Amino acid sequence: MKITRMHGAGGKVMQNLIGDVILGSLTNTQVNGGIGLQDLDDGSTIPIGDNEIVFTVDGHTVDPIFFKGGDIGRISVCGTVNDLSVMGAKPLALSMSFVLPEGFDIDKLKEIMDSINKACEEAGVAVITGDTKVSNVSDIIISSAGIGIVEKGKAVRDKGMKEGDSIIVTGNLAEHGLTILLSREGFDLESNLKSDVAPVNGLIQSVLNEGITINAMKDPTRGGLADSLNEMAEKSGLGITLQEDQIPLSEEVNFISEALGIDPLTVANEGKVVMAIPKKDAEKALEIIKNHPLGKNAKIVGEVTSEHKGVIMETLVGRRVVDTPIGDPIPRVC
Amino acid sequence: MKITRMHGAGGKVMQNLIGDVILGSLTNTQVNGGIGLQDLDDGSTIPIGDNEIVFTVDGHTVDPIFFKGGDIGRISVCGTVNDLSVMGAKPLALSMSFVLPEGFDIDKLKEIMDSINKACEEAGVAVITGDTKVSNVSDIIISSAGIGIVEKGKAVRDKGMKEGDSIIVTGNLAEHGLTILLSREGFDLESNLKSDVAPVNGLIQSVLNEGITINAMKDPTRGGLADSLNEMAEKSGLGITLQEDQIPLSEEVNFISEALGIDPLTVANEGKVVMAIPKKDAEKALEIIKNHPLGKNAKIVGEVTSEHKGVIMETLVGRRVVDTPIGDPIPRVC
Ligand SMILES: Nc1ncnc2c1ncn2[C@@H]1O[C@H](COP(=O)(O)OP(=O)(O)OP(=O)(O)O)[C@@H](O)[C@H]1O
Ligand SMILES: Nc1ncnc2c1ncn2[C@@H]1O[C@H](COP(=O)(O)OP(=O)(O)OP(=O)(O)O)[C@@H](O)[C@H]1O
Ligand SMILES: [Mg+2]
Ligand SMILES: [Mg+2]
Ligand SMILES: [Mg+2]
Ligand SMILES: [Mg+2]
Ligand SMILES: [Mg+2]
Ligand SMILES: [Mg+2]
Repeated sequence: MKITRMHGAGGKVMQNLIGDVILGSLTNTQVNGGIGLQDLDDGSTIPIGDNEIVFTVDGHTVDPIFFKGGDIGRISVCGTVNDLSVMGAKPLALSMSFVLPEGFDIDKLKEIMDSINKACEEAGVAVITGDTKVSNVSDIIISSAGIGIVEKGKAVRDKGMKEGDSIIVTGNLAEHGLTILLSREGFDLESNLKSDVAPVNGLIQSVLNEGITINAMKDPTRGGLADSLNEMAEKSGLGITLQEDQIPLSEEVNFISEALGIDPLTVANEGKVVMAIPKKDAEKALEIIKNHPLGKNAKIVGEVTSEHKGVIMETLVGRRVVDTPIGDPIPRVC
Repeated sequence: MKITRMHGAGGKVMQNLIGDVILGSLTNTQVNGGIGLQDLDDGSTIPIGDNEIVFTVDGHTVDPIFFKGGDIGRISVCGTVNDLSVMGAKPLALSMSFVLPEGFDIDKLKEIMDSINKACEEAGVAVITGDTKVSNVSDIIISSAGIGIVEKGKAVRDKGMKEGDSIIVTGNLAEHGLTILLSREGFDLESNLKSDVAPVNGLIQSVLNEGITINAMKDPTRGGLADSLNEMAEKSGLGITLQEDQIPLSEEVNFISEALGIDPLTVANEGKVVMAIPKKDAEKALEIIKNHPLGKNAKIVGEVTSEHKGVIMETLVGRRVVDTPIGDPIPRVC
């Protein structure tokens, strides 16, 4: 068996590889009883004193490395900050591991570093360690790990949603992935679309600061909302009912994804969050989120139920299953 | 200006890139007053309660990925464990970020995972988080970050050596780099040389457990012992005098490096440590180290002095300066 693009595209094919070959090979996947690799959450934790250290990593091979709304440097910061943030943690520090091609322009590297710095300032995190290699890669690759901190037992899990919870999506979907696709095809200048890549820790903190409990939370990156919701449903043993007319999608995204035959629910986002919140707090949470610059287009898109498993969407023409995608339709999206 | 292989080879060229372009672009490089990126140590720290979390990362693009004595999986674990260990920390957890080429054999990935698992068991660490991407790279790339823990204020720094300290090297040098070179040239089967790649946390712990203070410590990876000693000298403002006849080098390494015109002091090691230890404890430390399976060939190789800066080696034919190498003579060594 050989690796295909789908093994790196989120979704089922990648999940199987991770479950069978990676997780299946490892004996030690957990420290001090914290959240471990076997939980396959956005990050893992190491309990220390009254806190848990949260640890996560993402590698980035996005093509092209500069695109409307961001670049590989900005994604490297935000991707990792966001995985820490959806664990309910306060992001503290990042590592930056670079693999550079021979002949790479040092001015481009400077531009990427400036973008990393700006994103770090936005998110309030520091780059405290790194590594630099030169190899025969086609373009710069950045892997960024991150450390955050959360009060012991307060980490927000994928699996935590409860019957009756409202599902909130913090803004318009599919903008990152479609922007990448358009720039690859040279259509980016004719469109207003730009990547949503942004650090979401401030947005999430604004909800938590009001004492609202978030029962489950993910950043819908590769594989999009469809992948995240299915994971939340599966891990909780519950189901989700979505209202199609409530899902935030810009007109442009609707138009482009219809033209290309791509389901925007399976496309990657880099500055969005999906949360399960107790119904009684959902309107209040929505209001807080809508007051944040990154949450203007937030919506309550559905509800958690025990009446079915998986994700079902109510549409104008009836109900349809929203399945875990085989993989994100846009390769090398992040 | 363009990136050259030397920018990824340890040594002066890489140091300049990191100092000017990387560190020079970043505003936030430190958390809670811990050891920060500006210290350019083997890892950085985040003080939390009575402890400091130690954080480090290394990317690996070694060519070939399987070689005598190890493979990219084993290096990925040991490289990161060792950077944590030379900070005086107890390594706890690793992240594993993979970039795989399309068409990569899944059986090879399994072999690498088994090797990762074995090295983790040896070192007593867990893999708790990771990421998987597929991209057009020529071979698998692994970036592994790591978290360790050390009592507050007890981290061992590059800069900490003191006048009169003895310099200990824990075993024969240059075996990793030369093994890589030989396998690349197809000469590996004719030689007994194999990589020294191994986790050194147990070895270091055996010294610390006896209450011996280690004033400064590094793992002499890319750029070899020459690079590590110069960094320790420069950061402390002191000098080091080496005794050439005490430097542990196997006959085979001596033979090969003479034949190839490579200075073994500039070649990478992946299972060695260099320590500065107060003279009064040096013999005891040496004995402890020699009793550890990884330390059989350890030697006291020199002494810290305030009489000169930098590193000077006493040889049969007089004294010579051991300078920071421009870069490791063997590219893609780790
Ligand atoms: N190479 C790997 N080694 C160990 N664990 C891995 C590896 N790749 C992925 N994982 C684990 O699998 C789970 C899913 O990984 P995934 O990368 O999809 O999560 P994510 O970072 O939230 O999503 P994205 O990468 O799209 O932002 C995580 O728990 C992650 O730690
Ligand atoms: N891309 C980068 N971003 C931020 N810091 C970096 C980067 N590359 C290197 N550094 C920092 O520069 C210093 C030297 O890095 P280097 O990789 O040489 O250390 P090392 O890991 O001990 O050596 P080796 O990689 O050969 O094992 C470290 O403090 C490291 O954190
Ligand atoms: Mg995530
Ligand atoms: Mg992620
Ligand atoms: Mg390094
Ligand atoms: Mg080191
Ligand atoms: Mg290292
Ligand atoms: Mg990931």
